[in-house]
Amino acid sequence: MSTWTEVPEGSPFPATNLPYGVFSYDGEAPRVGVALGGDVLDLAPLAAAEGLDGGHVFESPSLNPFLAMGRPAWSAVRSWLVELLEHEGYRDLVESHLVPQSEVTLQLPFEVADYVDFYSSQHHAENVGRIFRPDAEALTPNWKHLPIGYHGRAGTVVVSGTEVVRPSGQRKPPDADSPSYGPSVRLDIEAEVGFVVGVPSPQGVAVPTSDFRQHVFGACLVNDWSARDLQAWEYVPLGPFLGKSFATSVSPWVVPLDALLEARVAGPAQEPAVLGYLERQADWGLDLSLEISWNGTVVSRPPFAGMYWTPDQQLAHLTVNGASLRTGDLYASGTVSGPESGQRGSFLELSWNGTEPVTLADGSTRTFLEDGDEVSVTAWAPGADGTRIGFGAVTGRVLPARP
Amino acid sequence: MSTWTEVPEGSPFPATNLPYGVFSYDGEAPRVGVALGGDVLDLAPLAAAEGLDGGHVFESPSLNPFLAMGRPAWSAVRSWLVELLEHEGYRDLVESHLVPQSEVTLQLPFEVADYVDFYSSQHHAENVGRIFRPDAEALTPNWKHLPIGYHGRAGTVVVSGTEVVRPSGQRKPPDADSPSYGPSVRLDIEAEVGFVVGVPSPQGVAVPTSDFRQHVFGACLVNDWSARDLQAWEYVPLGPFLGKSFATSVSPWVVPLDALLEARVAGPAQEPAVLGYLERQADWGLDLSLEISWNGTVVSRPPFAGMYWTPDQQLAHLTVNGASLRTGDLYASGTVSGPESGQRGSFLELSWNGTEPVTLADGSTRTFLEDGDEVSVTAWAPGADGTRIGFGAVTGRVLPARP
Repeated sequence: MSTWTEVPEGSPFPATNLPYGVFSYDGEAPRVGVALGGDVLDLAPLAAAEGLDGGHVFESPSLNPFLAMGRPAWSAVRSWLVELLEHEGYRDLVESHLVPQSEVTLQLPFEVADYVDFYSSQHHAENVGRIFRPDAEALTPNWKHLPIGYHGRAGTVVVSGTEVVRPSGQRKPPDADSPSYGPSVRLDIEAEVGFVVGVPSPQGVAVPTSDFRQHVFGACLVNDWSARDLQAWEYVPLGPFLGKSFATSVSPWVVPLDALLEARVAGPAQEPAVLGYLERQADWGLDLSLEISWNGTVVSRPPFAGMYWTPDQQLAHLTVNGASLRTGDLYASGTVSGPESGQRGSFLELSWNGTEPVTLADGSTRTFLEDGDEVSVTAWAPGADGTRIGFGAVTGRVLPARP
Repeated sequence: MSTWTEVPEGSPFPATNLPYGVFSYDGEAPRVGVALGGDVLDLAPLAAAEGLDGGHVFESPSLNPFLAMGRPAWSAVRSWLVELLEHEGYRDLVESHLVPQSEVTLQLPFEVADYVDFYSSQHHAENVGRIFRPDAEALTPNWKHLPIGYHGRAGTVVVSGTEVVRPSGQRKPPDADSPSYGPSVRLDIEAEVGFVVGVPSPQGVAVPTSDFRQHVFGACLVNDWSARDLQAWEYVPLGPFLGKSFATSVSPWVVPLDALLEARVAGPAQEPAVLGYLERQADWGLDLSLEISWNGTVVSRPPFAGMYWTPDQQLAHLTVNGASLRTGDLYASGTVSGPESGQRGSFLELSWNGTEPVTLADGSTRTFLEDGDEVSVTAWAPGADGTRIGFGAVTGRVLPARP
């Protein structure tokens, strides 16, 4: 697109991105905005001024009403925005509805209905298998036949910037006779990509891989904070629970799939062949480059393109049993880890279960998170016209455990 | 209480019960009602007529606004209802707001925020362990140290009476080389008791066992439909997912804790001693008698009083890591199984993994559910003045898999 906007090169939010979020400003009610360079485009008054059909959804304090409108509406609004940003004649109008991001507070962008977390990076699953089950095959027998996943706690999904209290709970070190209670001593992150469902589906009806784009609006970044010591003691036989449920952070901007079309790649070849309902009908691998910073030091750059299970397959699996979708459902990829040691998406892997400390720029070393540590995950994708589509950051700082 | 009401003996809904639900009637908007004998008391107009403080919450199509008001309001409304039912002078007024249950449609009584399912019957856990892991200890090492639980899919919780489509998915019989896709051939139930959270708690703050009654409004019955073949193949290492997420049914009436005070019993002694945060501060074992009917034949009578982990302990565990509570959170006990073979709460156990068929009244036999089968779970508890507090039924019929 040609545009009159002058977004500085390197901004995560060029006019080819147009991610949606919810902001509050100047004491006014939170409402929907679109990131453009260093500003937020205040959609509600702009849509009202222009008489945009259905524009009242942008007055909502969450994206859900817009998400529920479905793909034709998503496309229409994007086309409308592109037209405004292409034609110089709209410049004054648009500029009168820009608010500097530095002056707004970004909110949780959508009300999370159900939250599902997958486990779809082969490198991550193999690393975890080697660390936790050294005497067994790294991958469980089901891993290459289905995208393993589980439900997380939707009520503790928080927006980037929310501080995370170190969780307490039970753990039992292997050499202890019985469990003890206390703050987690192995607090970790998981850098993931999340997919946001807009259009619901009825209970009892499976959604095929080919309908991915009809249901899913876009993507965000997810940090699935994990207390490894709590998790290790609790997770057999029903899976992770308190080791994960204290907090899950998401980035404040939801990047539309329409902004990621240039990033589409074929997912990895799958051998053995998958069952019919999991067969891919289109390329929904995504060439996203993640970056993890620990107290400001970049410690890892996980590549998303190599994820074994792609989001269209995850959606088909999630619903193959007739589970319904709701507007606001969030499903995350699982930790994104690449084949190299500098591409691991959790500190469990980066420090190889605490045996290989990570050195930060200030010379200090880390294995798991210390109180006061701050972690930030960002990502970018190739966009149209040689631009870069940024995800903005999902950031969080660790507060000490409550007494 | 002395009451002018003439609820027939044996009704699950005497004046000492007063469970809350949501009903629709005569094409009008769904709203809150209370079950009384064979009728529903239409609370919204009654509260309006009497000028009850906050009575507008009963105009809502879910219990959530009432649940959010908290224990003082719950007690005030109950006292108001008791007064109306005690004094003959209110008889005409109350009777003018009764609607026969036969003329209403009962709705999902509350919007489910997060749904957690525990695993708190020792008999059930031992039975499952023996069936699925015959070469290992029946209980995993963590079982007596913490109430094991996991998150289920809140969006597929449905009200009693909703038909359940047989789920399809992947399974791999032990003797097969690779998994296959198809309708579940081992469709099961789990008879459980669910607890409904009214008052939220902030993220980062644990809720002690002693605060159980401040947060939990009441209880309902839960049928956690389970596809055992899907579950067996998928559940290692992250727990049950599609084997459970297609449907979970709840009874339409939420019985207030205030109606269950006569049913309180000490939970079983716990050895080894539990960690401090799990110590019971009051008796919240509940002497509920469940009954499971399969196509009209009573096949099991699980006793709830023997559950190893009590709901106050479950709540404390659920939040010990700082996970917040929201109005509408539902947590279920896990399958209720007693020590006798006629007290098992799942067909997996009743048929001992399909090896001991169950004979129904019509002479037919069953191991797992067949298409068209109907299952109903009811329960009752001792109530005040020698009455019986009924839970009403959670019922569901199995529809054939979709092609």
